[in-house]
Amino acid sequence: MTMPDQLGPKLGAPLFGEICILGLGLIGSSLARVIRLQNIASSLICYDSDAAVQNRVAELGLGSRVASNLAEAVAKADLVVLCVPVGANAELAQAMAPHLKAGAIISDVGSVKSSVVSAILPHLPPNVILVPAHPVAGTEYSGPDAGFATLFAERWCIVTPPPDTDQMAVDKVVNFWAACGSNVEIMTPQHHDQVLAITSHIPHLIAYNIVDTAAQLEQVTQSEVIKFSAGGFRDFTRIAASDPTMWRDVFLNNREAVLEMLGRFNEDLTALQRMIRFGDGEGLFALFSRTRAIRRSIIAVGQETAAPDFGRRQPETKID
Amino acid sequence: MTMPDQLGPKLGAPLFGEICILGLGLIGSSLARVIRLQNIASSLICYDSDAAVQNRVAELGLGSRVASNLAEAVAKADLVVLCVPVGANAELAQAMAPHLKAGAIISDVGSVKSSVVSAILPHLPPNVILVPAHPVAGTEYSGPDAGFATLFAERWCIVTPPPDTDQMAVDKVVNFWAACGSNVEIMTPQHHDQVLAITSHIPHLIAYNIVDTAAQLEQVTQSEVIKFSAGGFRDFTRIAASDPTMWRDVFLNNREAVLEMLGRFNEDLTALQRMIRFGDGEGLFALFSRTRAIRRSIIAVGQETAAPDFGRRQPETKID
Repeated sequence: MTMPDQLGPKLGAPLFGEICILGLGLIGSSLARVIRLQNIASSLICYDSDAAVQNRVAELGLGSRVASNLAEAVAKADLVVLCVPVGANAELAQAMAPHLKAGAIISDVGSVKSSVVSAILPHLPPNVILVPAHPVAGTEYSGPDAGFATLFAERWCIVTPPPDTDQMAVDKVVNFWAACGSNVEIMTPQHHDQVLAITSHIPHLIAYNIVDTAAQLEQVTQSEVIKFSAGGFRDFTRIAASDPTMWRDVFLNNREAVLEMLGRFNEDLTALQRMIRFGDGEGLFALFSRTRAIRRSIIAVGQETAAPDFGRRQPETKID
Repeated sequence: MTMPDQLGPKLGAPLFGEICILGLGLIGSSLARVIRLQNIASSLICYDSDAAVQNRVAELGLGSRVASNLAEAVAKADLVVLCVPVGANAELAQAMAPHLKAGAIISDVGSVKSSVVSAILPHLPPNVILVPAHPVAGTEYSGPDAGFATLFAERWCIVTPPPDTDQMAVDKVVNFWAACGSNVEIMTPQHHDQVLAITSHIPHLIAYNIVDTAAQLEQVTQSEVIKFSAGGFRDFTRIAASDPTMWRDVFLNNREAVLEMLGRFNEDLTALQRMIRFGDGEGLFALFSRTRAIRRSIIAVGQETAAPDFGRRQPETKID
């Protein structure tokens, strides 16, 4: 099975009048691209507090307009999407709150959801509606040039409305992500944070860890690690090249779930270490056999390529 | 920088008269393909103890001939390459020893080298020469259909001759791997085992471990792990889908170096866990920043693709 990465047909009529994207990194700039391509908004306003990013967004023509300040950016928006590292949400919410349009929907793209709700919600006026979301998609690159319109296609987006959120607003956010090409699932923020701790946060943590361990060994030089990385190590360097600010904030804001899952990972690793120490070949074989099935399932549901080695080698170079 | 995966020009004259490949899995069958394609041997004999593999190798026409038994396979070979899981080497060496041609070079492709030397060497007659090697290349697929001729192109092959090995024999093995497209480095078996422990064995171990941990959580269902795997987890499932027999044998045969490197990994992970517990944002940011540089170096030396997400998405689907 291939990963089609196709977007559906353009919308006949825009879902929103005006959308405002705050923060134009990988995710924000990909959203801007797909919003324009799919005709999701009549008007798209972009704003980034970093002047260099602002200029680049203007050069790339990612929005209908680049706002010169936050107040102006959000003033007429029917949907405001915060696309900043999760640690920056509270301050941003506070700064934009006085300028929001009555009835606006506020959303975000953060990889942690419980803490995001508690960081944003207290700052918002009562006449706007918060519907947090998390698109489970990305690459190891950052910034407005790294984005692309199909980033969310065939990927999942998890929407985590606080209790008693207006259903119409939830539906609009669900439809927004569907228009971006995503499959959408609704979850509580707490459950989201547990699911992502194991599917994303722990994988990043151990990838960062092994890359750093390898860089600091005495027995093996860094040049050897780099040369002989094709034996497995290089796979881990991809996610260990992800944005440091984003990931610092993830770990600071999903501490409980991460520590809980890390406890399980460590427990299991200790058991595996004992199998190696005591030469338990049957135990190792049984474990190494059952882990194969999960990859097959991930490929079957279209979340991974079946191409050997992630398709790193293009088919035309395969000679046999 | 792209990974060219190109083979050089065909050899004008074969390097060896007859080569025998024992074991036609991913590595053995890739070797058979490149040997024929590049004209590395006048004659290529294939043998596998698994009857189904034997038949498939004959169907695929991988060798000049498929031998019907081990004695016949090795009888006239100038180079015999053992391409079996490292745990099978001792028995295979013992079984083939009486049938080897005087002056033959014996090599292998095992991922562990100290134990391979001690498993094979004692069984060999004095008139043959052992020159172990390890091509640092592979995919997560197994068997004779998974192989391809460019598997070793631009990858490193580590040759680990025991002390006082005949230099002509070492040179022939080095030239053999160069003809297969590899870069070659010579190392002691002991140092090889430390380098591979960190660049390959520990990455596989923690990948197997996290995939198994994720499969057995109570808080998160297996279906959720599969659906939301694009946040990082799916990267680990690739190497956790590698051949269980091969990897059981690696861990049983490189116990000391693996336990030593695992100790370092655990020590570093504990420090990282404490940073999360105590909210040390500066420490996390510093660590997550320094790990980026290593990936850039791996890309710069041609051991990894610079394409986002390993190039999982083909360029034609990138719209922006």
